[in-house]
Amino acid sequence: MKNIKLTIQYEGTNYRGWQKQKGSDKTIQGKLENVLSKMTGEEITLIGSGRTDAGVHAEKQIANFKMNSDFDCEYIINYCNDFLPQDIAVIAAKEMHPLFHARYNAKTKTYRYNINNNPIPNLFQRNFCYHVEEKLNIALIKEASQLFIGEHDFRAFTTLKNKKKSTVRTIYDIKIIENYENLQIYIIGNGFLHNMVRIITGTLIEVGLGKLNKDEIPNIFEEKARSSAGFTAPPQGLALIDVTY
Amino acid sequence: MKNIKLTIQYEGTNYRGWQKQKGSDKTIQGKLENVLSKMTGEEITLIGSGRTDAGVHAEKQIANFKMNSDFDCEYIINYCNDFLPQDIAVIAAKEMHPLFHARYNAKTKTYRYNINNNPIPNLFQRNFCYHVEEKLNIALIKEASQLFIGEHDFRAFTTLKNKKKSTVRTIYDIKIIENYENLQIYIIGNGFLHNMVRIITGTLIEVGLGKLNKDEIPNIFEEKARSSAGFTAPPQGLALIDVTY
Repeated sequence: MKNIKLTIQYEGTNYRGWQKQKGSDKTIQGKLENVLSKMTGEEITLIGSGRTDAGVHAEKQIANFKMNSDFDCEYIINYCNDFLPQDIAVIAAKEMHPLFHARYNAKTKTYRYNINNNPIPNLFQRNFCYHVEEKLNIALIKEASQLFIGEHDFRAFTTLKNKKKSTVRTIYDIKIIENYENLQIYIIGNGFLHNMVRIITGTLIEVGLGKLNKDEIPNIFEEKARSSAGFTAPPQGLALIDVTY
Repeated sequence: MKNIKLTIQYEGTNYRGWQKQKGSDKTIQGKLENVLSKMTGEEITLIGSGRTDAGVHAEKQIANFKMNSDFDCEYIINYCNDFLPQDIAVIAAKEMHPLFHARYNAKTKTYRYNINNNPIPNLFQRNFCYHVEEKLNIALIKEASQLFIGEHDFRAFTTLKNKKKSTVRTIYDIKIIENYENLQIYIIGNGFLHNMVRIITGTLIEVGLGKLNKDEIPNIFEEKARSSAGFTAPPQGLALIDVTY
């Protein structure tokens, strides 16, 4: 039995997110499993490094699956891309050790959040950016972003309902990149809770608009209440950029 | 009667081009005329600076229309954007002299052609770039591009069928910009024939791939035969960037 690691790229605009749903074939995992099952004649289960929500993109998502068939990696890539829709692509495939697991073995993940900070929205960016009309104070956003680095309990920065699961995660770095009227927030960490990047981004936007003082951020960590943190920035600005093992 | 100049932005992916067609409402002009006619209660005819083909985009297209109604420009912008689909936007409106004509008065037009020159295509660019897998020789493309500048008979570089119309046009400048694996060709001229930018681009790509010697270009101008010039680069890489008056 072969264990295959896939590197996948997708535009999430037209999907209900990564995770397969009963009664809907508009998921990334569902589309990929259908093509892989058709290729192998086996019922394939694909394990993603993590879920992405509806409208969220991936420049590089990692997943693995096991098959009894003996196809080589180049054949798998070509078969998938011949049968996948245009907004999902397999960009690499590699045979791994039988114990490789795309979720359990992931060491770091990098996400990027794109903000278009311009009085007039750019329609070419509508599916890839969150448009903020009012001028953001970038210096304040940069200062505030540093407060998220390190090991913290991110309970206030998630919509996770399960109170028993640990909400402690480590953020290794946050980089804020300005490129004309676009702002990119890169966040690298050992793992992310549901909506965590979007709530951190929403909190940073509120700081940049002067609605929230950055000195409040340590208190938000301590209070552990979702209502203290910023809003959930919309999905279309978010993309999974890299997963390392 | 007011004469209104509109500045319009659109993604051409889902349209059959600028020009209204009988029996299809999938044109940019058609969508805009419907909204303007609904707003005014008059049958509005919109005059564009020129047509764009199916799949071609515009960061800035100019058009004008006349109306008996007395709406101000801000109202027009807001009304249009409320009723237009998400991939068409009116970004400015201005009342002009009654004789202003978006096509006849246009002095220069700037087009941009995007090439993604990378072994692996990037699916996020699929509707905005032409993907060329094989490495292009940029120095050769830059040299060849200079041969198009000036007043020439562009008969070989158009699919225009009408032999009576003049095919002499002036290109003021061509700029080739490299940005990682992307190549952008900016062309500014006093006017462009049907498919002219796409055929010039196709010719430059053939030079960059070593399929055509740049020294052949003066002969192509002289022979005036479409078959001597390069292929017609596909529409999705092309965008109208600016029109001046």
